[in-house]
Amino acid sequence: MEKITSLQNAKVKFWTSLKDKKSRDLHGLFIIEERHLIEEAFNAGVLESLLYLTGDTPYVNAPELYECTEGILKKVSGTVSQNRQIGIAKKNPVHSEENRVFLLDEVQDPGNVGTIIRTAKSFGFDTVILSEGCADPYGHKAIRSTQGALFSLNVRYGNLSEEIQTLKNRGIPVYGTSLKDAVPLDEITPAEHATIILGNEGNGVKQELLSLCDQKIRIPMEGFESLNVAIAGGILAYAFRKHQ
Amino acid sequence: MEKITSLQNAKVKFWTSLKDKKSRDLHGLFIIEERHLIEEAFNAGVLESLLYLTGDTPYVNAPELYECTEGILKKVSGTVSQNRQIGIAKKNPVHSEENRVFLLDEVQDPGNVGTIIRTAKSFGFDTVILSEGCADPYGHKAIRSTQGALFSLNVRYGNLSEEIQTLKNRGIPVYGTSLKDAVPLDEITPAEHATIILGNEGNGVKQELLSLCDQKIRIPMEGFESLNVAIAGGILAYAFRKHQ
Repeated sequence: MEKITSLQNAKVKFWTSLKDKKSRDLHGLFIIEERHLIEEAFNAGVLESLLYLTGDTPYVNAPELYECTEGILKKVSGTVSQNRQIGIAKKNPVHSEENRVFLLDEVQDPGNVGTIIRTAKSFGFDTVILSEGCADPYGHKAIRSTQGALFSLNVRYGNLSEEIQTLKNRGIPVYGTSLKDAVPLDEITPAEHATIILGNEGNGVKQELLSLCDQKIRIPMEGFESLNVAIAGGILAYAFRKHQ
Repeated sequence: MEKITSLQNAKVKFWTSLKDKKSRDLHGLFIIEERHLIEEAFNAGVLESLLYLTGDTPYVNAPELYECTEGILKKVSGTVSQNRQIGIAKKNPVHSEENRVFLLDEVQDPGNVGTIIRTAKSFGFDTVILSEGCADPYGHKAIRSTQGALFSLNVRYGNLSEEIQTLKNRGIPVYGTSLKDAVPLDEITPAEHATIILGNEGNGVKQELLSLCDQKIRIPMEGFESLNVAIAGGILAYAFRKHQ
């Protein structure tokens, strides 16, 4: 255990930098603020450090423990709420083979990105691959929306055109979601190994990606034709769920 | 058209008060900030007033038009972004018979409430009834999440125990979502007229409400057993969708 009291401490400055995506990408580390997510990160073996308020008992026995002042925790925290303990965890983007995959094409809302990761996990998907334009899954809001699914799923960036080709070469069918020229979901027989592409909140999946897909599918709706992308992902994940 | 320049103007104070749920409830009015939602509210006939910046052309020809200063728009707006036009709309909680219904039991996140309303509309549900503990569907984040579905669906508050009894008396089956003692969704034959209860993000549907249901259903998952309530609602709405 190390005790840190100065806001000018180099470690404090480093942790604070992790509020920015650039620093998270560079160092492969991210901040966790909720107790149950800190505990899940610890159980998943990705928690590196735990910062806790002087006088508190650490939530978990992280590899590195730092006793800190309230000012330091406030500085490192990205949220308004005053967390008494903050975790620093390492990204672990690949855990297993990639057979049941979501591709996210510029999904920009961090809540949507996190919720899709959570849902993917619940229906036995193993992988979520994000285009560069997506919200960072390691930002605070996204992490919270994953409810910890992020710590055990394959979650990584990729060039989606290349990923589609690779998956197709491996014999895994790729389905693009589209409102036009698409087969209704209820006419599809879901394969166990499959890839589903979800698109940007305003624009959907890019045409150039749709043209690479094995099939375009649409979710049959009643006129209003408006679904949040995470909801569309949930309906598709359920339709393609892994049966035990 | 009326021109308003003073932040102390009584109307400005009144509009600003609508940022609070209490005032929205009292006056049956709410604020809309996005252009496409203002246009949809106008088309749905619920837009009462439009506040626009001096020099701008009003988005729509609202019944009452007010030319305002930037300071006034900033004061009335509930968001950080500077909107050049703001709509004031009237609540219109009931539009049609209530046959395809979602009941929300203390769903607390405004994004979830709004997304459920949007999804309900897309799958031909006509009604969303909220318990008192739910997030206000007329708050800014919820309205944005509805994408305008709020303007044409029945969206109202109710005592859920009483609502369940009324619906059952009308012969409409009531399904509660539950992880325990529940029939898997894929074993249910969805009725056209149906009620689905969704629960609080942390605690699910209250036991006292579940005990009133005709049937408890669960969404079959793969171990992780963790779904955002709006995602669960989306999967159920799709399963119970109205076929054209």
